[in-house]
Amino acid sequence: MPLVVFKPSQKTIDVLPGTELLEAARKGNAEIDSPCGGKGTCCKCIVRVIAGEVDSDSLGLLPKSAIDAGYLLACRTKVKDTPLTIEIPEREEITGGKFVEAADDAFLVHQEFLPKDIKLNPLTKKWHITVPEPQLEDGLSDIDRLTRTIQKEIGDQEIIFPLSIIRKIADTLRVENGKVTITAIHEKDRLTVVGLETGLHTATHHGVAIDIGTTTVAVQLIDLSTSRIISTLTDYNNQLTCGLDVISRINYARKPDRLEELRNHVLKTINNLIKQAVKNQSIKPEGISSAVISGNTTMIHLLLGLKPEYIRFEPYTPTLLAVPYFTAGHVGIEINPEARVQISPAVGSYVGGDITAGLLCTDIANDSEEVNLFLDIGTNGELVVGNRDFLLACACSAGPAFEGGGIKCGMRAAFGAIEGVEVNGETGKACYWTIGNVKPKGICGSGIISLLANLFLTSWIDAAGKLNRERNSLYIQFEGRHAKYIIAPAEESSTGEPITISEIDIENIIRAKAAIYSACSLMLKQVGLNFNDLANIYIAGGFGRFIDLEKAIVIGLLPDMPLEKFKYIGNASLMGTYLVLVSKEYRQRQHEIARRITYMELSTDPSYMEQYTGALFLPHTDVFRFPSLQAKLKK
Amino acid sequence: MPLVVFKPSQKTIDVLPGTELLEAARKGNAEIDSPCGGKGTCCKCIVRVIAGEVDSDSLGLLPKSAIDAGYLLACRTKVKDTPLTIEIPEREEITGGKFVEAADDAFLVHQEFLPKDIKLNPLTKKWHITVPEPQLEDGLSDIDRLTRTIQKEIGDQEIIFPLSIIRKIADTLRVENGKVTITAIHEKDRLTVVGLETGLHTATHHGVAIDIGTTTVAVQLIDLSTSRIISTLTDYNNQLTCGLDVISRINYARKPDRLEELRNHVLKTINNLIKQAVKNQSIKPEGISSAVISGNTTMIHLLLGLKPEYIRFEPYTPTLLAVPYFTAGHVGIEINPEARVQISPAVGSYVGGDITAGLLCTDIANDSEEVNLFLDIGTNGELVVGNRDFLLACACSAGPAFEGGGIKCGMRAAFGAIEGVEVNGETGKACYWTIGNVKPKGICGSGIISLLANLFLTSWIDAAGKLNRERNSLYIQFEGRHAKYIIAPAEESSTGEPITISEIDIENIIRAKAAIYSACSLMLKQVGLNFNDLANIYIAGGFGRFIDLEKAIVIGLLPDMPLEKFKYIGNASLMGTYLVLVSKEYRQRQHEIARRITYMELSTDPSYMEQYTGALFLPHTDVFRFPSLQAKLKK
Repeated sequence: MPLVVFKPSQKTIDVLPGTELLEAARKGNAEIDSPCGGKGTCCKCIVRVIAGEVDSDSLGLLPKSAIDAGYLLACRTKVKDTPLTIEIPEREEITGGKFVEAADDAFLVHQEFLPKDIKLNPLTKKWHITVPEPQLEDGLSDIDRLTRTIQKEIGDQEIIFPLSIIRKIADTLRVENGKVTITAIHEKDRLTVVGLETGLHTATHHGVAIDIGTTTVAVQLIDLSTSRIISTLTDYNNQLTCGLDVISRINYARKPDRLEELRNHVLKTINNLIKQAVKNQSIKPEGISSAVISGNTTMIHLLLGLKPEYIRFEPYTPTLLAVPYFTAGHVGIEINPEARVQISPAVGSYVGGDITAGLLCTDIANDSEEVNLFLDIGTNGELVVGNRDFLLACACSAGPAFEGGGIKCGMRAAFGAIEGVEVNGETGKACYWTIGNVKPKGICGSGIISLLANLFLTSWIDAAGKLNRERNSLYIQFEGRHAKYIIAPAEESSTGEPITISEIDIENIIRAKAAIYSACSLMLKQVGLNFNDLANIYIAGGFGRFIDLEKAIVIGLLPDMPLEKFKYIGNASLMGTYLVLVSKEYRQRQHEIARRITYMELSTDPSYMEQYTGALFLPHTDVFRFPSLQAKLKK
Repeated sequence: MPLVVFKPSQKTIDVLPGTELLEAARKGNAEIDSPCGGKGTCCKCIVRVIAGEVDSDSLGLLPKSAIDAGYLLACRTKVKDTPLTIEIPEREEITGGKFVEAADDAFLVHQEFLPKDIKLNPLTKKWHITVPEPQLEDGLSDIDRLTRTIQKEIGDQEIIFPLSIIRKIADTLRVENGKVTITAIHEKDRLTVVGLETGLHTATHHGVAIDIGTTTVAVQLIDLSTSRIISTLTDYNNQLTCGLDVISRINYARKPDRLEELRNHVLKTINNLIKQAVKNQSIKPEGISSAVISGNTTMIHLLLGLKPEYIRFEPYTPTLLAVPYFTAGHVGIEINPEARVQISPAVGSYVGGDITAGLLCTDIANDSEEVNLFLDIGTNGELVVGNRDFLLACACSAGPAFEGGGIKCGMRAAFGAIEGVEVNGETGKACYWTIGNVKPKGICGSGIISLLANLFLTSWIDAAGKLNRERNSLYIQFEGRHAKYIIAPAEESSTGEPITISEIDIENIIRAKAAIYSACSLMLKQVGLNFNDLANIYIAGGFGRFIDLEKAIVIGLLPDMPLEKFKYIGNASLMGTYLVLVSKEYRQRQHEIARRITYMELSTDPSYMEQYTGALFLPHTDVFRFPSLQAKLKK
């Protein structure tokens, strides 16, 4: 068996040829970070071969520069029949997730909910034509000849040339005897030319799908000639410095110049991600000819510099829901300034284009009688229920608890976050694990759900979320009327402070879960249905990814239903945005969905408060709603 | 009779009450400049009342600031029954014509060729609507409500809102309970909103008509609610520093950055004129919602930043002839950035939109069998011949001689230019008069024609343009093989140098007139006509204004035809531009004309050189073409 030596730790292991390097490292106790568990999606298990030979297919997953420098992914690399020396690079603490080559490439394209047979028909088309030379006799101008050549192919339609393209026509037509590549957008009965190049360039044709979340912005670079996702990059929305949630951003925008400040913040985030994405591929930003953007209604207002104030107050009227076509130059996206920017249509002030994009990844609006529920859990929860006959949407404000906000030791699902907890029924001691298997720094949403469910199942908290004052535990501390639970003592934590959760934190979490559950429940009631009538529950959003469904049912965040009915569909907004960019069918379907959805304003519904109050318990005041949980508790 | 005292000269005169001040000054030998001869158009006879009372109606002719400061036009002011003291301001030498409130207001509107009954239908419309308040129930966004309110009036058409307008919607709709004023452009089946204001503002609605000449730029501010011309301002095209004519500008533009320099030059000229025009009227530039621009093909290319190089070389192909609609922001015109800029369509590289605009002021394309000729004489001569059945256009390069270019003592028709000359048949001495009745500084186009005709009629030059070497005159000097004629000796001239014309100058002038005459002649020949078949000859362009028709026939610049057939129509391009701005009928007619005209490329026509050579004599080698002149010469 070949010997593998890991540097700098000098740990060694004998493994069979064909063993994955990641497995070899594990067996040899050489630490390699692998948050995705070796699926080839997180790109964190980077190693370098110092001596020996390997079989690797990291190509396309790592930036070319990294591969050129000899780096590989341990999870995609196999040991051969010869001794090996492997260097594990020192880990740099990743705090922000800046320019992470996102985990989701494979996930997004291979994902079961992404349609199998997308008919490629991207927003912009690129093709090659030959324009006849100018003739004295015909008196045609350059633009006339170009127009006629295009019309010969597409029929007698209006051809629109922006001024910046017109400025290039004279020279471009004269370089290679009229051989040029046109990039254009076709809609209704007109064609708008957005690119004009000398010669044949149809092989390089790019677009971007952009998802603007209140917290995270994702940019996906797409090869429009094949519909291949080249890369997905994510970063925090720079607007975070101006408020964590939609409402605080709206408040922030009320003072003069701040609307422009917010606009610049999100543009900076987007443009940096685009810059990074194209740099990795040696493409120029100007080569990107179209962008589709999805985001909630407030995010889109801020992106366009539209005053969001009126979204906040009754009658909650936004400036716009459907967004006209703009150029990238108008919006401020730094790609080809003439590139078309299409923005996913919103349904209401609190059900935005991220939802109409996300729904494209589900069967909810397809030709079926089955009723499905779509659930995007975030600071704002957005819910859609429907089938081929009806679509009903509403939004609720869950608050930032599931993203770690408003929780003393809460944090986002980043390195060092506790993502799972088991609680010892006897001692109350927590056994936890963190993202990246490093010392804990805080607790993220999935950790919080896991913790609460376990504390409840082991009776360390009651249905009202109060810590048990009758049983003794080293891990429960009292301060006056309040108590807190110690998840990790100071000596285990990377911050030197204990990681705790207080009863006030628990109240916040219960309010968040109650908001979502009661909204679902009320919306179903409106159409005379209940949870048992649902065929599927699609869960979207970054938060849903690490959620333990059983635990989420225990705390009453999700309804008590067979687990196979829950389908996690990831960043559905980004996936849907991608579909809109590459497929005309999905562009049409999205507009159809936006048109069909009935928006229900929960905050003015008198029975919402009743539903909400009923849900302010673990799992619910009405325990019969959670029969399988009851069975479990009885056991 | 009241006594009038003129200051600072202290000249006095007794005149009858009711006498015009200008007349009083003439009688009293007090010099007041009045190039227009008291028609109230040149605005040069400015005076100020120091003591006493007058009847004056200078209002609307002088800037408000001048009237507030007590200035009046002497030609529009009458003496009353009391003694008067009048100050004649010291004349400042006017060299550039900077920001002259142009003479042509009255001229342009009262002019006999301006259509009598224009149906007012300006490019942009402004009207008042009331948008219903937002409702929780209907789920409509601001833009939805605004769109529906507009569509209720104009029908179910596409309504387009630019981003800058969308940004204003939320606040604007909420100030006066939804009462707003819309400014919009209606075309085909869509309406583009370019202005949105709170409240009722339909009374202020402005547009600009812009004529870009190679030498002079004219800007006319129009009240679109009445179609009234508020003011006309002219200035030299700032591009003059980069070359006097079209060809030198094209050459100048060949080096990097210079195209942008030329673009900035003309924009500066236009924007300064607009700024001055609105300042005089206390209007904001952003209140101007549409602009129509006419200019020759090269001027439009330079305005739009389009490479003009290919216009110059065979097959003389411009980037464009018909110009798409752009916004003022795109073009760089500093008015409402969303304002529509419509550019008059061109016919060929050397027959531009100034001609399709100018033709609107003639009967040439109207429903008549009569064949008419349109002649725009400038550095480039543009000619159109036609009737309801055909329209043929061509261009010829006359060179700058008629604008004083390439002539040693030549100058433009400005103060101090000799504009008319009589030559004594016995002595050869010239009797001349100048614009402004000041000491001569040079000779302008009309002076040159007058001089040449008189020298020819008095036999001081022969048909080839050579000065008579057989008769003695103090005013003819020889230098080697060449001779020159002294129009004004050094002591009479304001420059201290004699004002002369040499045989080389005369050759230049003959070449210029031959180019125009032969082009007219060849074009008529192409359609089987000759000059006698013409019903009217319309002469356009600044140069034509001061031309002495009889003299122009003597030198063979114009054909020998009854004088009443010649119609001077002034700055027809500017007038036509105005018509396009205010009338839909004229917008359609202009495009119809542009479509109908057949462009004839003279420079490649083999018989042009023959025609041209025949015209290189005074008046022509074929004297039978000038029968009335022959009769005059025989007398």
